[in-house]
Amino acid sequence: MNTVEGWEKKIRRVIPYVAGEQPKTEGVIKLNTNECPYPPGMGVKAALREFDYENLRLYPDMDAGALVDALATYYGVRPGQVFVGVGSDDVLALSFMAFFHGEKPILFPDITYSFYDVWAEVFRIPWETCPLDGEFRIRKEDYLRPNGGIIIPNPNAPTGIFEEISTLEEIVRANPDSVVIIDEAYVDFGGESMLPLLEKYGNLMVVQTFSKSRAMAGMRIGFAIGNEKLIGYLKDVKFSFNSYTMNMPALAAGVAAIKDDAYFKETVEKIIRTREWTKGQLARLGFHVTDSRSNFLFATHKEIPAAEIFQALKREQIYVRHWDRPRISNYLRITVGTDQQMEILVETLAKYIKEREYD
Amino acid sequence: MNTVEGWEKKIRRVIPYVAGEQPKTEGVIKLNTNECPYPPGMGVKAALREFDYENLRLYPDMDAGALVDALATYYGVRPGQVFVGVGSDDVLALSFMAFFHGEKPILFPDITYSFYDVWAEVFRIPWETCPLDGEFRIRKEDYLRPNGGIIIPNPNAPTGIFEEISTLEEIVRANPDSVVIIDEAYVDFGGESMLPLLEKYGNLMVVQTFSKSRAMAGMRIGFAIGNEKLIGYLKDVKFSFNSYTMNMPALAAGVAAIKDDAYFKETVEKIIRTREWTKGQLARLGFHVTDSRSNFLFATHKEIPAAEIFQALKREQIYVRHWDRPRISNYLRITVGTDQQMEILVETLAKYIKEREYD
Repeated sequence: MNTVEGWEKKIRRVIPYVAGEQPKTEGVIKLNTNECPYPPGMGVKAALREFDYENLRLYPDMDAGALVDALATYYGVRPGQVFVGVGSDDVLALSFMAFFHGEKPILFPDITYSFYDVWAEVFRIPWETCPLDGEFRIRKEDYLRPNGGIIIPNPNAPTGIFEEISTLEEIVRANPDSVVIIDEAYVDFGGESMLPLLEKYGNLMVVQTFSKSRAMAGMRIGFAIGNEKLIGYLKDVKFSFNSYTMNMPALAAGVAAIKDDAYFKETVEKIIRTREWTKGQLARLGFHVTDSRSNFLFATHKEIPAAEIFQALKREQIYVRHWDRPRISNYLRITVGTDQQMEILVETLAKYIKEREYD
Repeated sequence: MNTVEGWEKKIRRVIPYVAGEQPKTEGVIKLNTNECPYPPGMGVKAALREFDYENLRLYPDMDAGALVDALATYYGVRPGQVFVGVGSDDVLALSFMAFFHGEKPILFPDITYSFYDVWAEVFRIPWETCPLDGEFRIRKEDYLRPNGGIIIPNPNAPTGIFEEISTLEEIVRANPDSVVIIDEAYVDFGGESMLPLLEKYGNLMVVQTFSKSRAMAGMRIGFAIGNEKLIGYLKDVKFSFNSYTMNMPALAAGVAAIKDDAYFKETVEKIIRTREWTKGQLARLGFHVTDSRSNFLFATHKEIPAAEIFQALKREQIYVRHWDRPRISNYLRITVGTDQQMEILVETLAKYIKEREYD
């Protein structure tokens, strides 16, 4: 039955990325894909309500002008420095294609967003990982050798750890012959962006997303900011792939989200407060928790294996993320939810740990 | 000023596709990008109005289950045979990546959708074109030699000409070692789909779009149908690129559009009627017009160069499409608009031709 047909010899065979589970049952506390526990602002609601469905017959603005302009104004750059895509995954995939076209391996941390090696494989880009140290910190020296490009998330995932931008700046400065991408998906939750350094380094590009801090994972909006020449190359690849990627509702809602800055900041602050409270509670329960500057916590228990806790939480309808991978198999990544969700998490964990002691 | 920086040596350099102009001025009669002149159905309006913006905080269903199921039901196939993407350009780009990974050149007509060679270039796929005959028809024999894959649009663009599916079936049958993609972007306007042949040929895949007959270019929805094994390979590549491509409004509106079949058929019939009326009028004015089975007309005037007519129409705020390319430089591609728009087009042309005679 499993005969290989002729046409299969011409297939690009790849092992795809596997995203976190999206349980369809009701009543689940979903802390496994780093979504925002709060809805987008009322501006987004209004933008969608006012959207004229009749316009759908027309192609959207292929340059996504309104969204690009809104982002350029917000971040104080020129519109030509901004690139938008269908989530930061789209932006990153196209960036891998555009910028990592050399012969030497590209470099990224061994513990990081697990899509990087998938993109490298699908585009046949040679790659090597650089091991984080025992505290999950980047070792700068690892990135000072010949390479085909560099990508580092800051804060990193799934550790949540933020590296000082002075460290990353040294890496950017030492690699004028490579594009260095800093993936700032989580930067709004207490990190510091590399954006102010763009004027200084033509080989630096920063990528961010609307999926976390802007509560719009369902709308698929990501963006990159870099110098105009670099962004120009990225646009050339994008326009060689798909002229019209951002649909009309995404453009309208994206602009509205950027304009509603007070709501954005309020949401981020709430999540940071909840994160810090949860962190304290987890420590009290015997967890070691990294110093996360993201909207998730990365935690390991001093006695109980992570895989067991993961299953115990799942039985109680609480979904967190666990990877059966070297160095992090004893960790859980827990998205910061609402205060109420985190209280239930903490209570559930406390009960589980206590009952386990008496078993 | 134009110094090449070190990192530029690792850039994938490409010449991107250029889509038709999207004039931003009001009052333009836009017949240059094959958009539908009518809005989507009321079901789409309702789906968007009822869409709960609060859900945007969550990632969309990465399998696009509701839309895939709706398409599978509509076309009488299994859900595993359906792949959806951000317009048929997204579906086709990923298909080029997935299926055209052999060493021999892929084949497609010399006069066709001008994105094919752009995708081949961006993915470094060797390619060769097969010249259409003097009547813009496919010469079947051209596709019976060793190749890395085949893509043929039917009806073809920009000619609008439909090939009998028996001809294409011979090509599919003769190429068991290659994937053959039939790009049916315009099939609803009087063509015949290859879909019924899918059960017979494992190497056949059909691609369609919501951008033309379903009046939803602004929502970016395209899809492919093939056998489950083939679609499985395409999904692997897609999930190696971007897990979540279809945003929530697109999924909701797409399902609604499929369900509203009466409106869809009515729209298509109106466009066909307008097309045939316009065709007669153009013939009367001295144009030779191909037998289009699409939502556009491909026309050449017996005396006046196409480039001149193109400019004359543009001065009157009527945008059509013209390519300065071998074999078709004396043709115009004119999207079928509303009856009123086509009446204005015909009057404008009549006036222009008459005045030109007296010059």
